[in-house]
Amino acid sequence: MTALQKSSTPSGRMRFFTFGDGASPGSSSGLSLECGRAIGPVTLAYETWGELNEKRDNAVLVCHAFSGNSHVSSCDDPDGSSPGWWDGLVGPGKAVDTDRYFVVCSNVLGGCAGSTGPSSVNPATGKPYGLDFPVVTIRDMVDAQARLMDHLGIGRLLAVVGGSMGGMQALQWAASYPDRVRSVIPIATTLKHSPQQIALDEVGRQAVMADPDWRMGDYEGRKAPEKGLALARMIGHITYMSDRSMEDKFSRKLKDVKYSFSFATDFEVEGYLRYRGDNFVKRFDANSYLYITKAMDYFDLSGDRLFGGGGPGNTRFLVIGFHSDWLYPLHQSREIVRLLKMHGADATACEIKSTYGHDAFLLEIEEESRLIRHFLAKTRDLADREDQ
Amino acid sequence: MTALQKSSTPSGRMRFFTFGDGASPGSSSGLSLECGRAIGPVTLAYETWGELNEKRDNAVLVCHAFSGNSHVSSCDDPDGSSPGWWDGLVGPGKAVDTDRYFVVCSNVLGGCAGSTGPSSVNPATGKPYGLDFPVVTIRDMVDAQARLMDHLGIGRLLAVVGGSMGGMQALQWAASYPDRVRSVIPIATTLKHSPQQIALDEVGRQAVMADPDWRMGDYEGRKAPEKGLALARMIGHITYMSDRSMEDKFSRKLKDVKYSFSFATDFEVEGYLRYRGDNFVKRFDANSYLYITKAMDYFDLSGDRLFGGGGPGNTRFLVIGFHSDWLYPLHQSREIVRLLKMHGADATACEIKSTYGHDAFLLEIEEESRLIRHFLAKTRDLADREDQ
Repeated sequence: MTALQKSSTPSGRMRFFTFGDGASPGSSSGLSLECGRAIGPVTLAYETWGELNEKRDNAVLVCHAFSGNSHVSSCDDPDGSSPGWWDGLVGPGKAVDTDRYFVVCSNVLGGCAGSTGPSSVNPATGKPYGLDFPVVTIRDMVDAQARLMDHLGIGRLLAVVGGSMGGMQALQWAASYPDRVRSVIPIATTLKHSPQQIALDEVGRQAVMADPDWRMGDYEGRKAPEKGLALARMIGHITYMSDRSMEDKFSRKLKDVKYSFSFATDFEVEGYLRYRGDNFVKRFDANSYLYITKAMDYFDLSGDRLFGGGGPGNTRFLVIGFHSDWLYPLHQSREIVRLLKMHGADATACEIKSTYGHDAFLLEIEEESRLIRHFLAKTRDLADREDQ
Repeated sequence: MTALQKSSTPSGRMRFFTFGDGASPGSSSGLSLECGRAIGPVTLAYETWGELNEKRDNAVLVCHAFSGNSHVSSCDDPDGSSPGWWDGLVGPGKAVDTDRYFVVCSNVLGGCAGSTGPSSVNPATGKPYGLDFPVVTIRDMVDAQARLMDHLGIGRLLAVVGGSMGGMQALQWAASYPDRVRSVIPIATTLKHSPQQIALDEVGRQAVMADPDWRMGDYEGRKAPEKGLALARMIGHITYMSDRSMEDKFSRKLKDVKYSFSFATDFEVEGYLRYRGDNFVKRFDANSYLYITKAMDYFDLSGDRLFGGGGPGNTRFLVIGFHSDWLYPLHQSREIVRLLKMHGADATACEIKSTYGHDAFLLEIEEESRLIRHFLAKTRDLADREDQ
């Protein structure tokens, strides 16, 4: 982790796995990327909870969304000062039960919460990569995670679960490593970005790149493009909420008793967005914003891409979507299920009623827990029977 | 019109009405604004089509949307080089029939297509207003239009029609001047912006204001904040289209045969947005962007505000909404109708099936024409009978 990298996760829990540095035996080769380039060394920041059992078949990989990190749960934190981003779902007795499962979560390749990304030092120059960092894809992220699983001695995962971009990674696991996943739980996600989703990402990228402080990605040791990044995040937050959840939370409530008749903050929703934007720049790297949104835009497992010429093998799928999610609308979840069924996969589709929009995957814990708890138990049952 | 002001309308047709300059008799007082300030002189750029009849009861006022101008129709243009923004609806034999009606359209107060706005010269300083321009409201815009109607000798309008922000002005006419409008046709609009709509506007404003070329609105004689304004417009365009219409138009089509693995334009939708953004800055003033979005955010005719303590009088309403419009969704059209009916107004509600999103109000001409043609004819019939 370089000085530039920003992380809100407690460093005490976080561990680092590095490969492609020629140092660690068995992990000496770098990562061959979809763009044709190779990269190394690659470091993944990760955390684990629970114990890997003797048969090494109880591992669950949780994949984080766009701006997430490895800190999915704070259940083992000594002080609990930094909440996990899915605390309600991952922990002892929770749906992803750390008493039963060995849970792993790593920061994605290209990220800025401990893993190698554009803010990491380029060994060729001794300076941060910036735009010299290769454009990585969801497949590349998953390939790096597979190397981490090798390192942890996990041959086949009981499950890969994730929401939003985490769901893309889960689907990519089924596509890239069908023999290494018993089950996949893609939540609030899609087989590919629609033009509207690409457009929203592109506006965010343009906001970052229009900021003169961006300097073609070379802002090391100077002011970061904070205004542009905050702006991009404001757009993001609008898409994470629904029309209805914004109405419930803010309505037209004013900060003051009446209109300011100026361009100051009049409405609470404006103040909220500015606050979220300003906060985001403290923990996120602007170049990572560019790279990770690009990875999402490039992602496309539609048609024959999901299983290549092959099939789903024995992988089971639980696909979850939310009614008010307009960023990853239900018809995209249905499209995942349709494609899975067409390939003869064992796929269960669940549509959860929620008013929270895309944020629902982080908030509708009770319903998600019920679905995921039973699905994981059933998957484990099937695995046990298979072994007998 | 100052040199700063940008206009794509043919200046040959455009006329200017100025009041509050103490020069023209009967129009010497300035405009008292909702913010408490007064402004003068005020110039409105306007165009007219057809003839005002002897009874002066065949005038139709068309109100333009956010970035529109007075050039609603090119039917009278000598060369036809500059299309009107509602050519399909306004012209001889069209639904708003210039052979039968006297049609007026003016650029809004605060705009940048000929009317007084932040880029106009402030008589107190001899320089463009910039941020010294008062924050105007939809009510102020309509008050200025009413002065123009006085000037044209129009006591009572046969109809006020408009889409989007034009629909807000139409509703405001019913609220401010119930005795001066026989009918009102609000299209793809709302009684008030929801927090989501305010949020989208605020992001656009922040994009403009984050551009260092904006200089607190004082960019006269220098480079305008083009990047920020283009960015704001890109966001706008995403909201004008629907998920479906973007899919139909762009899908995931690439500019090149494969991914660039860079931050250049990969997808056609990205190229389209950049093009629309770059084009917009040639014709629109960044400060006007701030002022007009603010006017929309402040607009609120919900509850008792629409008719104050009174009622709709004899004003008839035709409220039109579109199924795929997510910027001004159908539930907002329904809310207008509900409020009108609660006040005992003669209100007809029409919901048009379309995949074009908010742009539908500019594109679904055939269906709109049928509705508006009959509604105007009926309104005129009723007016004639009233006079007998």
